[in-house]
Amino acid sequence: MKKESKAWRNIVGLAIQILKQVERREPPFVEIPLRTVDNIVFDEKKGHYVLGPKKALRTFRNVKHLKPLTQLVWVASVARRLIDEDKTSTLRDVFYMAEGVDLGFEDQSESDRIITELESIIGAPREDFNIYPEERSAIFADLTIEYTVKGYEGKRINLTSHPDGLMIGPALATAKFIKTSADKVICIEKGAMFTRFVEEKAWKKYNAILIHTAGQAPRATRRLIRRLNTELDLPVYIFTDADPWGLHIAQVIISGSANAAHVPELATPRAKWMGVYASDIEEYKLPSTRLLDVDIKRLNELKKDKRYSKEPWKKEIEKFFEIKKKAEQEAFSKYGLSYMVDVYLKKRLA
Amino acid sequence: MKKESKAWRNIVGLAIQILKQVERREPPFVEIPLRTVDNIVFDEKKGHYVLGPKKALRTFRNVKHLKPLTQLVWVASVARRLIDEDKTSTLRDVFYMAEGVDLGFEDQSESDRIITELESIIGAPREDFNIYPEERSAIFADLTIEYTVKGYEGKRINLTSHPDGLMIGPALATAKFIKTSADKVICIEKGAMFTRFVEEKAWKKYNAILIHTAGQAPRATRRLIRRLNTELDLPVYIFTDADPWGLHIAQVIISGSANAAHVPELATPRAKWMGVYASDIEEYKLPSTRLLDVDIKRLNELKKDKRYSKEPWKKEIEKFFEIKKKAEQEAFSKYGLSYMVDVYLKKRLA
Repeated sequence: MKKESKAWRNIVGLAIQILKQVERREPPFVEIPLRTVDNIVFDEKKGHYVLGPKKALRTFRNVKHLKPLTQLVWVASVARRLIDEDKTSTLRDVFYMAEGVDLGFEDQSESDRIITELESIIGAPREDFNIYPEERSAIFADLTIEYTVKGYEGKRINLTSHPDGLMIGPALATAKFIKTSADKVICIEKGAMFTRFVEEKAWKKYNAILIHTAGQAPRATRRLIRRLNTELDLPVYIFTDADPWGLHIAQVIISGSANAAHVPELATPRAKWMGVYASDIEEYKLPSTRLLDVDIKRLNELKKDKRYSKEPWKKEIEKFFEIKKKAEQEAFSKYGLSYMVDVYLKKRLA
Repeated sequence: MKKESKAWRNIVGLAIQILKQVERREPPFVEIPLRTVDNIVFDEKKGHYVLGPKKALRTFRNVKHLKPLTQLVWVASVARRLIDEDKTSTLRDVFYMAEGVDLGFEDQSESDRIITELESIIGAPREDFNIYPEERSAIFADLTIEYTVKGYEGKRINLTSHPDGLMIGPALATAKFIKTSADKVICIEKGAMFTRFVEEKAWKKYNAILIHTAGQAPRATRRLIRRLNTELDLPVYIFTDADPWGLHIAQVIISGSANAAHVPELATPRAKWMGVYASDIEEYKLPSTRLLDVDIKRLNELKKDKRYSKEPWKKEIEKFFEIKKKAEQEAFSKYGLSYMVDVYLKKRLA
């Protein structure tokens, strides 16, 4: 992210606010949106979690607040420096940087929490101040992008350039979309299936941008999916394994996680989960294994989550309980390597 | 891999051998190099594991051999088809394809074992018949490659094209090396550190090809590292976390695993482990955590492995036992984001 971005402006704004308080000889304070359960609301209309209006006051008047407020100011200064110097970092990195200063950070959960507070104060995800996840997923698409990262400004690349896929890291996440022939986005849980989709030319046959989520999609990838949906107005389809974990991988792309209620820029409410469904296990006679206790437990948890009370979720969760089986995306290989793309995907997208 | 490759010729050779046996009205048989512990030898001179001379006979004369021998012939036919059709696959895929035929495969471990047998018979790793791991790692380098995969034949790309890195999948693993300004290869365990090395221009400052191993390097990545070492004659340096798992990530790149003794094409005996060392934790006062019981147990296992009886392994394992601490690559962030590249790496490579 660049200077003059919303994140940069709000971080500088926070600094100026504190500075003015000091100049007025008032003990500095900051208001932080509460991220407690009673302030996390699922917004039906928006289709994702949001924070309610409650805020916590953190002030230098209170001796207990001295440490966390000082840590917050330090993290904000790190964030600003990351933007100014055009460097990216991770949660882990920031924790180690904290070890270089003497601000009483106990462990990583403490620096993580302060970073989350900064996100909620400035109303922007940490990727906007260049703190990225360690995990990387990949993309393959007839989509030309233009980089904005240092040393690559203005350079363009078409995302079919490398058949194994391009990593989705800081450079891709911040690139501008220039041109695409695609009219949809297909997200795929497994790397093997992603490679299959490239090789079987699913991207060409279905005019699709292919995204490998590598299991649970990292935040930068969810952000990119949302951008493709909102900026290019492309519908998003998600294919996962037919098990409770696959359901949740899809749901998190669609509606975000309660944990990230303060940064709704990561959700894509219009995205659709397209399979593999529990009912496909029966319909296609897929090789399957029995649900384990841990799977059943997870399904019961999902059943209580109201996001799963709509279709196709509700029906498919019931089907899982009925057949007590799960299957992987690769199970379609039973019918040969082309079947998934040429038969199943065609039918599902129709 | 292409037709006329060693793998393809040997698979076809195996088929012809069996066919001739049938034509001579003999019960077909195949000799399979034994992969039992007493036939796996660490070759000191070559610096990696190899198989000894022992072989097992599998013959249609023996009713117990009927199933595994039939499965072997089926797997060989799948392998040939993968090469002929220029499609890639995974161990998991092949297991599901096996579910489509009625050859009594009980579970994936059975199809995996047969694939390993085929590797040892034809003397080539499964990547040569297009069976790739699910995991992917990444590369960034001033290295121009030329693809050989279908649809991309003859196309070239420079591996600095995408600052987040290009995935190392089937296309990259089989590409030809055309041109590079690099004079060394640096392998990095962590994704965050890889991104740091790209951003801090470590690739330029040190004329290095950067490879992100993503933890334990997948086989296709180890193969690529070996090719860079042998075909381009580039020295290989490996940087990992300072813990027993990091040591082993480096060791597996260098000397392979006992499991893969039948495919020595995966080892790079001349590669060097360059840190982060246990002694660096003291020398650089790195933020560290106590070794857990599981770490200690692992160190004791490594100590018994003779590959760790040389330096720097021996000394560093002793140091771990002495200080009872471990540290991550990112621990250097204590000194700021540039320190690892500008100070530590410089010193270590000198």
